[in-house]
Amino acid sequence: MIREAVADLPNVEVDHFRGLLADFVRTRGAGVIVKGLRVVSDFESEMSTALMNRSLSGVDTVFLPSDPRWSFVSSTLVKEVYNLGGDVAEFVPEAVLRVMRAKRSTPRPAER
Amino acid sequence: MIREAVADLPNVEVDHFRGLLADFVRTRGAGVIVKGLRVVSDFESEMSTALMNRSLSGVDTVFLPSDPRWSFVSSTLVKEVYNLGGDVAEFVPEAVLRVMRAKRSTPRPAER
Amino acid sequence: MIREAVADLPNVEVDHFRGLLADFVRTRGAGVIVKGLRVVSDFESEMSTALMNRSLSGVDTVFLPSDPRWSFVSSTLVKEVYNLGGDVAEFVPEAVLRVMRAKRSTPRPAER
Amino acid sequence: MIREAVADLPNVEVDHFRGLLADFVRTRGAGVIVKGLRVVSDFESEMSTALMNRSLSGVDTVFLPSDPRWSFVSSTLVKEVYNLGGDVAEFVPEAVLRVMRAKRSTPRPAER
Amino acid sequence: MIREAVADLPNVEVDHFRGLLADFVRTRGAGVIVKGLRVVSDFESEMSTALMNRSLSGVDTVFLPSDPRWSFVSSTLVKEVYNLGGDVAEFVPEAVLRVMRAKRSTPRPAER
Amino acid sequence: MIREAVADLPNVEVDHFRGLLADFVRTRGAGVIVKGLRVVSDFESEMSTALMNRSLSGVDTVFLPSDPRWSFVSSTLVKEVYNLGGDVAEFVPEAVLRVMRAKRSTPRPAER
Repeated sequence: MIREAVADLPNVEVDHFRGLLADFVRTRGAGVIVKGLRVVSDFESEMSTALMNRSLSGVDTVFLPSDPRWSFVSSTLVKEVYNLGGDVAEFVPEAVLRVMRAKRSTPRPAER
Repeated sequence: MIREAVADLPNVEVDHFRGLLADFVRTRGAGVIVKGLRVVSDFESEMSTALMNRSLSGVDTVFLPSDPRWSFVSSTLVKEVYNLGGDVAEFVPEAVLRVMRAKRSTPRPAER
Repeated sequence: MIREAVADLPNVEVDHFRGLLADFVRTRGAGVIVKGLRVVSDFESEMSTALMNRSLSGVDTVFLPSDPRWSFVSSTLVKEVYNLGGDVAEFVPEAVLRVMRAKRSTPRPAER
Repeated sequence: MIREAVADLPNVEVDHFRGLLADFVRTRGAGVIVKGLRVVSDFESEMSTALMNRSLSGVDTVFLPSDPRWSFVSSTLVKEVYNLGGDVAEFVPEAVLRVMRAKRSTPRPAER
Repeated sequence: MIREAVADLPNVEVDHFRGLLADFVRTRGAGVIVKGLRVVSDFESEMSTALMNRSLSGVDTVFLPSDPRWSFVSSTLVKEVYNLGGDVAEFVPEAVLRVMRAKRSTPRPAER
Repeated sequence: MIREAVADLPNVEVDHFRGLLADFVRTRGAGVIVKGLRVVSDFESEMSTALMNRSLSGVDTVFLPSDPRWSFVSSTLVKEVYNLGGDVAEFVPEAVLRVMRAKRSTPRPAER
């Protein structure tokens, strides 16, 4: 899903891992973690996580400010709007939207 | 419960809905959503919700500062105090308190 | 300058006053003060001012979230960029820009 | 566990209670609640709790700033790192670490 | 002025000093600095000052939450309202108000 | 002064400029602006500046979290402590301290 969304970005690689991000980063030989920052309330928990990761693995985190036009779009809010029947096409990549729609049309086991 | 609490306010109407607030507001022909703001930590999530609602339905949200005497009273904190046996009569309307007390005297199914 | 910028908004009236906003509002018979909110750091001082105004004159303040695309544009930052020679045409109304340019071409007395 | 961690502090007493902290404090005849403050996001909820406790029992809360070297260490983050296999020896007292390790070596009922 | 405002509090002593608060506190043999906290924006600068004082002199600072009814009253805002002709009697002690009024009736040298 | 403080860092170059940072960055062909972030109150103004710089010159800013041990040390606070006679040797580089001391021993023209 993410792979599809970034398919046109040749310098992006998608991978998954179990365990600590700090360990994964070291395993891959990455020099730095990059995170986006939207709003003040993001900042403190991201800062704590960054300092924890530096303490655990010596890997630094750098932050990039997100585009202010989308500063109000969090994954939590998008999921909430979608679950209440709202149109979120403007806020998620095409590939993600397709998966979300597929999930909605299949009744969840608990609902049968 | 809310109806009772606002019974003496002739220009208030209580209604309930399913789905998105943004859709409900449009259905009712309302021009604006009014929210109270207590503290800084309210502000960012309310701001995101307001911008999302404007994006979804074109309806604006206006914020009213709450009375500072009650700035520390959130529904989460009141419920926590009440569940631990504290007296919350000062913080909730009479009608709400009556419902809370009725609930407490009935054992919950899981507790039997 | 402001008058020119809002000339095409028939329901806006521009006025100026000395003294307290709270007194001015009462004098004009206005029922409410409307302010825009950009960011968290705006919020606390605007909240204090709103509560002070309510305490002084009984007039409420309502807040409108500003468009997130412009959330980073404060008058302080625009003036700073302009004074350092930056192009601020994107951030200020035409009429304001004209006044700013007129001011810059006239040397200030202290600089002669 | 906590008793062991503070065993070398003669003026500290460890106790447990059910119900409201405000009630417990009054029962013990304590004059004041002392809390540590790490970061801004701690501040608002601790402030609300403090004001609620003052309202419920008349007991004041005083705040002590925590050591900035550990400002990024919350119990939530430590548990998350530990559950993902990270080394948290630097962040928790010896006695707590021993209990955490004992818990991990015993498979949880649900996992058998 | 402050002396007069606290005249009825037998356990309060008013003093003045030059230089660092940290040095003054040590000179007086005080064990702790007590500060009030109103709002989030107070918190960070007070926290920095507290940590600086601990670093300079080993003296801790404890914070007391201020009464939420007055959380919007800062000395800056009161002075601003007063200078614009507003009534601040509700927000300052009698003795301070008298001094403020005396100052206003004497024209400042620059205004003559 | 800064040159001396970073003399042992071979990959650091010190330069000065007039005008906008955004223009300077473009002139030097730099790809990115790097800033440190200490506390929440830094965050919002730095975020606004970063977004303004991106808007003016297309240059991105990345943020690095500062070491939490020094999170309470701002240049404003250090200057204030120093001017009140405090010892700031722990908080500033050797070279800066020498300049600060030289300035203090020379009476300022206005003070003669």
